[in-house]
Amino acid sequence: MSHTIAVDIGGTHIRVAVYESDSITPIAHQRTRSLATEPGVYDRLEQAIAAVWPKEKVRAIGIASPGPLDPHTGTVLATPNIPEWKNFPVAPKLSQHFGVPVHLDNDANMAALAEWQYGAGKGHEHLVYLTISTGIGGGVISHGCLLQGFHGMGAELGHMMIDPDGPPCGCGKWGHVESFCSGPSIARYVKEQIEAGQTSTLQTQPDPSPAQIAEAARAGDALAISAFERAGHYLGIAVANYLAIFDPSILIFGGGVSQVGELLFNPFEESLRKHTFHPHYLDDLVITKAALGDDAGLLGALALARMKSA
Amino acid sequence: MSHTIAVDIGGTHIRVAVYESDSITPIAHQRTRSLATEPGVYDRLEQAIAAVWPKEKVRAIGIASPGPLDPHTGTVLATPNIPEWKNFPVAPKLSQHFGVPVHLDNDANMAALAEWQYGAGKGHEHLVYLTISTGIGGGVISHGCLLQGFHGMGAELGHMMIDPDGPPCGCGKWGHVESFCSGPSIARYVKEQIEAGQTSTLQTQPDPSPAQIAEAARAGDALAISAFERAGHYLGIAVANYLAIFDPSILIFGGGVSQVGELLFNPFEESLRKHTFHPHYLDDLVITKAALGDDAGLLGALALARMKSA
Repeated sequence: MSHTIAVDIGGTHIRVAVYESDSITPIAHQRTRSLATEPGVYDRLEQAIAAVWPKEKVRAIGIASPGPLDPHTGTVLATPNIPEWKNFPVAPKLSQHFGVPVHLDNDANMAALAEWQYGAGKGHEHLVYLTISTGIGGGVISHGCLLQGFHGMGAELGHMMIDPDGPPCGCGKWGHVESFCSGPSIARYVKEQIEAGQTSTLQTQPDPSPAQIAEAARAGDALAISAFERAGHYLGIAVANYLAIFDPSILIFGGGVSQVGELLFNPFEESLRKHTFHPHYLDDLVITKAALGDDAGLLGALALARMKSA
Repeated sequence: MSHTIAVDIGGTHIRVAVYESDSITPIAHQRTRSLATEPGVYDRLEQAIAAVWPKEKVRAIGIASPGPLDPHTGTVLATPNIPEWKNFPVAPKLSQHFGVPVHLDNDANMAALAEWQYGAGKGHEHLVYLTISTGIGGGVISHGCLLQGFHGMGAELGHMMIDPDGPPCGCGKWGHVESFCSGPSIARYVKEQIEAGQTSTLQTQPDPSPAQIAEAARAGDALAISAFERAGHYLGIAVANYLAIFDPSILIFGGGVSQVGELLFNPFEESLRKHTFHPHYLDDLVITKAALGDDAGLLGALALARMKSA
């Protein structure tokens, strides 16, 4: 019986888990601080894996990492969270060290794969996953296949331009879905409106978090409500585009900002209906929340390793 | 040795061709006026197929038709060119009549499939095809698989919104790629600018065609040149989005408007470089014209029938 090791590299923690053949319950688990901005991230990663290495044969290692990265070569190109990793061949290095195949893909793709295999998207052949958080990441299953693309950089759904006159994006471009709908984009809008003279209970907060804005909205603050309405409006435009492009049977929302619920999703659904190219896309379309929470990256890495070594 | 029959249903003509096992040169060919707005389109189609029916066994029939349609059930939902066909089960009807499997998909998907199997995209696993004509149609091959989607309505690339303040689209929505870059959209822009007082050699033309606008641009007309610059600019935004979404290794342009060449593609390439989310998408990306011309629909229908009955 061979085991699979899954790794989730995050900005604050590296998580490693060991799984028996077909199980998704780990038999061993390790959590290490990544100290991502300090030297030695790779060494800490290698040690965390070594710490859980089982006596049984290991079939493969799967890794979920922040991108952009090249899953075909297992190389992280450059990731804002880990300044040390520039064109860093993390999968080949681990493979050479541990003597087993190592497969790598970005965290949003891995969350999509996990939701498809083990979570909210089980049984669907056409899935779009969107995580709305500090950034916006996407993952797509099309005809039962993870969309990776030629350079392994497909499904960057947050970086679709939906307004050439839109605000700056974290990536350096502008008018992207992320620049309207991510947590920081919603907060920036609130700040700008206050600076422009709009009154709000948030005036006393120098940098309100999405959670604080949601709290203010629930207490009736007009600016806070309009900030989510605006994000929902643009999210509806974005998702109408994804429907015309992918025609999925399920749409899964993950990430912290998705947790605000109706504040975002009521205006989103109104905008989606208004902007959808043809009503047939909405027939039997499931729109739901991610089911796997913080384990999505780890379980996606597990699914990837199993899929690639099947 | 079994034969395959391919059909291309166009607004003006229905074309039918018979192919031997692995050949892409027809052994029989039939071209009939579709008279699409008059009754009896289905009967003319059935007769055109019967007219070329070979003595040998027929493996399957493939059909390229204008959409929107449902390839999973072989039903045309409603297509502007053929008012008679509303939720019309063309594939099941033909299958019952001729006693062989019949497979249907829209013309842009079929052109993409043809270019991939027999044309400019041979050997690529990740292909985006865009036809720029009266409308804008798209077809996508992702990981060696034709993207059809849950309802069979994926890859409607012309109906991605890229500007919420954009002009009306032929589909009834607005701000879509088609509403900036199709032939009629370019012509409308010229007309609007003339009405707004801009001088142009096109002033004497009540409804200039894209070919006439291209001629004026080549003769130095500033408005005509700016009309293609504007279309190229928005086409660059659209394609930058397709790269982030699909990460293809080849991008193929078909359709009449693509024939204008540098007038459109120089500003397009400048805009693409400016808007591409990450320069890595452009590494080894092939950008080329369609190779199969008017036969793309027919050859796509052939490829579909062979693929589905393999």
